Amino acid sequence: MAAQKFTVGFIGLGRMGKPMAKNILKHGYPLIVWNRTKSKTEELVREGAQQASTPKNLAEKSQVIITMLANPSSTEEVLLGVNSYQKIGVLDGLSPGKIVVDMSTNMPTIAKKLAEQVRRKGCEFVDAPVVGSVKPASEGTLTILASGKREVVEKITPLLQTMGSKVWYVGEQNGFGCSMKLVMNLHLSILAAAFSESIAFGVKLGLDPKLIVEIFNNSLFKTYVTETKGTKILEEDYTPAFTIELMEKDLGLIISSANAVKASVPLGSLIKQFFSTLIANGKGQLDYSAITVFYELLNNTKISKN
Amino acid sequence: MAAQKFTVGFIGLGRMGKPMAKNILKHGYPLIVWNRTKSKTEELVREGAQQASTPKNLAEKSQVIITMLANPSSTEEVLLGVNSYQKIGVLDGLSPGKIVVDMSTNMPTIAKKLAEQVRRKGCEFVDAPVVGSVKPASEGTLTILASGKREVVEKITPLLQTMGSKVWYVGEQNGFGCSMKLVMNLHLSILAAAFSESIAFGVKLGLDPKLIVEIFNNSLFKTYVTETKGTKILEEDYTPAFTIELMEKDLGLIISSANAVKASVPLGSLIKQFFSTLIANGKGQLDYSAITVFYELLNNTKISKN
Amino acid sequence: MAAQKFTVGFIGLGRMGKPMAKNILKHGYPLIVWNRTKSKTEELVREGAQQASTPKNLAEKSQVIITMLANPSSTEEVLLGVNSYQKIGVLDGLSPGKIVVDMSTNMPTIAKKLAEQVRRKGCEFVDAPVVGSVKPASEGTLTILASGKREVVEKITPLLQTMGSKVWYVGEQNGFGCSMKLVMNLHLSILAAAFSESIAFGVKLGLDPKLIVEIFNNSLFKTYVTETKGTKILEEDYTPAFTIELMEKDLGLIISSANAVKASVPLGSLIKQFFSTLIANGKGQLDYSAITVFYELLNNTKISKN
Amino acid sequence: MAAQKFTVGFIGLGRMGKPMAKNILKHGYPLIVWNRTKSKTEELVREGAQQASTPKNLAEKSQVIITMLANPSSTEEVLLGVNSYQKIGVLDGLSPGKIVVDMSTNMPTIAKKLAEQVRRKGCEFVDAPVVGSVKPASEGTLTILASGKREVVEKITPLLQTMGSKVWYVGEQNGFGCSMKLVMNLHLSILAAAFSESIAFGVKLGLDPKLIVEIFNNSLFKTYVTETKGTKILEEDYTPAFTIELMEKDLGLIISSANAVKASVPLGSLIKQFFSTLIANGKGQLDYSAITVFYELLNNTKISKN
Repeated sequence: MAAQKFTVGFIGLGRMGKPMAKNILKHGYPLIVWNRTKSKTEELVREGAQQASTPKNLAEKSQVIITMLANPSSTEEVLLGVNSYQKIGVLDGLSPGKIVVDMSTNMPTIAKKLAEQVRRKGCEFVDAPVVGSVKPASEGTLTILASGKREVVEKITPLLQTMGSKVWYVGEQNGFGCSMKLVMNLHLSILAAAFSESIAFGVKLGLDPKLIVEIFNNSLFKTYVTETKGTKILEEDYTPAFTIELMEKDLGLIISSANAVKASVPLGSLIKQFFSTLIANGKGQLDYSAITVFYELLNNTKISKN
Repeated sequence: MAAQKFTVGFIGLGRMGKPMAKNILKHGYPLIVWNRTKSKTEELVREGAQQASTPKNLAEKSQVIITMLANPSSTEEVLLGVNSYQKIGVLDGLSPGKIVVDMSTNMPTIAKKLAEQVRRKGCEFVDAPVVGSVKPASEGTLTILASGKREVVEKITPLLQTMGSKVWYVGEQNGFGCSMKLVMNLHLSILAAAFSESIAFGVKLGLDPKLIVEIFNNSLFKTYVTETKGTKILEEDYTPAFTIELMEKDLGLIISSANAVKASVPLGSLIKQFFSTLIANGKGQLDYSAITVFYELLNNTKISKN
Repeated sequence: MAAQKFTVGFIGLGRMGKPMAKNILKHGYPLIVWNRTKSKTEELVREGAQQASTPKNLAEKSQVIITMLANPSSTEEVLLGVNSYQKIGVLDGLSPGKIVVDMSTNMPTIAKKLAEQVRRKGCEFVDAPVVGSVKPASEGTLTILASGKREVVEKITPLLQTMGSKVWYVGEQNGFGCSMKLVMNLHLSILAAAFSESIAFGVKLGLDPKLIVEIFNNSLFKTYVTETKGTKILEEDYTPAFTIELMEKDLGLIISSANAVKASVPLGSLIKQFFSTLIANGKGQLDYSAITVFYELLNNTKISKN
Repeated sequence: MAAQKFTVGFIGLGRMGKPMAKNILKHGYPLIVWNRTKSKTEELVREGAQQASTPKNLAEKSQVIITMLANPSSTEEVLLGVNSYQKIGVLDGLSPGKIVVDMSTNMPTIAKKLAEQVRRKGCEFVDAPVVGSVKPASEGTLTILASGKREVVEKITPLLQTMGSKVWYVGEQNGFGCSMKLVMNLHLSILAAAFSESIAFGVKLGLDPKLIVEIFNNSLFKTYVTETKGTKILEEDYTPAFTIELMEKDLGLIISSANAVKASVPLGSLIKQFFSTLIANGKGQLDYSAITVFYELLNNTKISKN
């Protein structure tokens, strides 16, 4: 049986959102788009998407409404229709039976709050944040962490699969998708720090950083960071896949969420301060792997082999 | 050309040393053994090894002398012949042309000091610590990190290969093997903490720990720790491959070595304190992956799925 | 010249606010009060204060409006008239010439935002948070950290002096009072941790904790914490002057404010996690000096002399 | 009754030792001195002290032998007569009834070991480290933390009082004096970091650092650091009373001692890394209050008011 081709509304055509929306379109879903900066919708409109006048207008015309926005407060504003979105928010355009899918990286508490508001309109809510950066977004190979009612998630799974190669069902409770995303990013940020602290230590001991990367990557202790960033770090290639500013923002969400449930995240807290130092030193637009630059500062040394 | 079958002396038949020595013997090298607790030599003697009366006696009879001892001070005493080893140490039995190979996890500064003393006797020194625990030691699949004169390391490489499946040449300067080992263990200790902090955070957020492990291990962010310890942690199986006490001891060497070169290792320093807390709570004999127990304490929660 | 006796409106009659309001009344200022839980106004009304029906109503009747609320979001709601305060907030009752004084511990960014809104109504804004807990609030001996236009702060200084023995002018920019308050609480939280870490260390080394407190307090290194909390800690007397929950909340404001300006506060960040652990262990209502209990947990020891 | 005027031997005439020895001489005690660098004894000899040829020779001629050396290994060597001191150490010159007083900052474990060796010679041992730097050493106003047999400490108290205005009896067990010293220095190092982190935070928030120091020093939260270093920090006056290198060395002793008893010192551990960064950046000879420079680095800001 072919997957149901919902009319999909997509809000937020940033670096991640645009390639995700394109993949939906490519798979034959009728697509309606809206973005605060209107020019960002042009490319998709040229490829066949329809342009909505407001988030409300988009919601009225769509069966499934996807949001992919830069931060929790934008998501709240656009979805709930507050501040400059008063009376033109998604909520204002909802009628019973629609499904709202927030794919932004968000706090679990906010996902719960959004879900509640959406349900009052007789609609369903799924939080389905993604793991992966621009490249997998373009290739449709993101990992998607979805939570909400099981049958709802199942219903939209073919749609999600246009964007991601792996869709995980994380649980019935809204916010669990967000929680899982934050857990994964906490882990990733510590992996990055682990590698940087280790290689800086090795360099101070006199070891060849190139050899360190080679040995790590031929050992059991290799990680995503050592494998995909190791060689780049040696060349000081910090072209951003995921910037320091975004990682620090996510660590902010992690720490706020930890605070809400009284979880203790000492390493994450400390590493956030390290990223903060990098931003204070004008490095916020580099890739998060440039936490090595923080360790160079701490150690008064150079890690790159040059 | 067949590898030269040196007469090998092996000192230190502990949990790691004994299986390593057995593998040497199995490959047809004449083997002479010595251990402080004599009973530990019995099995090897039964299998064909010769028993030396003292480290000095062992050194006199061997072409290559290997030490595999529990801590830097034992290594110093046995090799240099100080304290209870006065006049019966390895150094006292050396004559020109022999090769001393320290495979213990040691500090680079001590390796340098040992090398200097050994060279004064007209001998060569290689520091060649190992990565891997009891199982790869038994199977001869350790990773070996050797430093010293290149031709000397090459000469003993076939011998080292009886114990390890991978022999890295880390550099000419003695102590570089030790340095590389410490760098790898620093990395490993942070990977363990990264996973524990992340899974504890997830559990507090309400996620199923079993699902967290599953998602991690099917994602790019899996590590040696998530893959080999993840499921065990869920079952509170902390059967030691490498104990908390040993990891904490290694972090002590890491921090001392960092101190010597003014390297800054903030995460390693903090994690050492976490392991210290575990030891203070009577958990020192558990596997190092039981750093999760520290996070359970911090978070007043249980990570295992039971 | 006698100080001008403004009609004062006071919102927020909690543990701190009530004794502060009483001191204003005691000095002969006409006082109008409002509190969400109405019963808390009774005592003051009996002593001569007038009762306002809403924050708006209070603002209409007062020349100076003081807010002393538990957290930044309450302050925003009550002052700006949002959520359940729509159309009945302070802002809704302002007319040109009035002075709004926020004495809550607040974030500098929020103080700035409030100031802006208040100014649009032709009024003045002063942020004037206080240092000190319930006892100095009752005795009128708080330290007050005021920022805003100098002549405005001077105008209300006699009023502030009914509550505080020391009024500091921190600067013209609104938010500076809040900033200074956060700086002082960051310092205090680290002093508390410094003492706890030190005494726990001493106890583990076998020293008599009573003697440690005595020596500290007779040395140059005594602090407010060693002097006022030292002996109480020995007796496990954690009767709250300022609870762990409040300190952790303030550390949250500190870290958010640090984040906003990319200040790096590694110790504060870590200590917040320690307090978080205490809350997770059900200790949130103890005095913040009970951070010693965290160190008892870390060290598996008892600090009290019993 | 006048205090008994022992013949006193004093070893270690460094920045602290020389003024301490002078005070002993000034109070009329017969004094014999020895120092590795002989020239350092000249001034005291001119003032009436006798010069010993070796530590052994000094021990033979003295009733009380005081050591004040730069680090634990020097103390061990000179006292026990090892390495270059073989057969000319203090121990070699001891005969029953003499008292050895180690006033260096030392590890409790080493103090215990020294005590044991000294007792075997029929002598007594007191560890009596000092709190205070060069100025109180010159003025005879050090704080002295003595442990050992009570009657022995009492016997030498008048002698100790020539150097210190306050002599504390810390307990019978040798090493307790050292322990107490380390506890105090741990506290002091955290106080210094507390102030630096707070003032850097304030400066980033836009506050006037001069005002911060003024408010701190007029508040309950002032400390030894805010009072004696605050103004100097504003002027970047880091003339050393106690250098970063010495503080970092002491933190090393603290962490080793903590390790020995499984005490957890997370803040001390982290702060040691901060000092390590300063040394790596060539700031080791500045006063320890220059930990502010580390925070300037972290925050990419300047704390001094210039």
